[in-house]
Amino acid sequence: MADNAARKATLLRYVERFNAADAQGVAALYADDATVEDPVGGQVIAGRDAILAFYRHTTSLGARLEVMAPPRGSHGDAAALTFSVHVRMEGRPARIDVTDVMTFGADGRIRSMRAYWGPDDLHFV
Amino acid sequence: MADNAARKATLLRYVERFNAADAQGVAALYADDATVEDPVGGQVIAGRDAILAFYRHTTSLGARLEVMAPPRGSHGDAAALTFSVHVRMEGRPARIDVTDVMTFGADGRIRSMRAYWGPDDLHFV
Repeated sequence: MADNAARKATLLRYVERFNAADAQGVAALYADDATVEDPVGGQVIAGRDAILAFYRHTTSLGARLEVMAPPRGSHGDAAALTFSVHVRMEGRPARIDVTDVMTFGADGRIRSMRAYWGPDDLHFV
Repeated sequence: MADNAARKATLLRYVERFNAADAQGVAALYADDATVEDPVGGQVIAGRDAILAFYRHTTSLGARLEVMAPPRGSHGDAAALTFSVHVRMEGRPARIDVTDVMTFGADGRIRSMRAYWGPDDLHFV
């Protein structure tokens, strides 16, 4: 099983590839049958094609992720990252406060991503 | 259903009661049949008595929680909080980096808590 250090490196690589607007690079971090629930309580998308389309869309918005604290591991197959998303919405600068929780497969790829943010975590700044 | 603002207030109340070493006050934030998995991947404890005993132990260590970013809500019944635990271990000052994810019942009480931290999130400082 991939260890915590490898999982955390993948989380930071996720941020780096996202901020480079490299949707393909982000999607490549996921297992083929992975799931994404962003936000938690919203629709779950599944599979690499749907996940690539999701990141093609989100990276096209010019969003930038700012890491707020070092990634956290676990005593299982999960890790968490807390960050803010800086993006323009409705022509105005905005910030969305998010915590992602990811689980990982034995090969170190992301099996699931759940993004914790609610309507009141979107702030116009 | 309790809203995100109420859930976030409960997370901050959790920190406040924990830092006051008020195990009873922390446990009172939980539903009677709640579960605690701390750390994620470790043993799950269930029920108010077990949870009270857990916080009696952890608050007795003189630990102090430092919030690292505003709590995050969700579009469901969950919220997340990222913090550091300052505590003495083996006679030395230490810090444990943690993200808690909690789910809440309709009455606003915590139904489940999962604490994301791994062996390498414990730092002697």
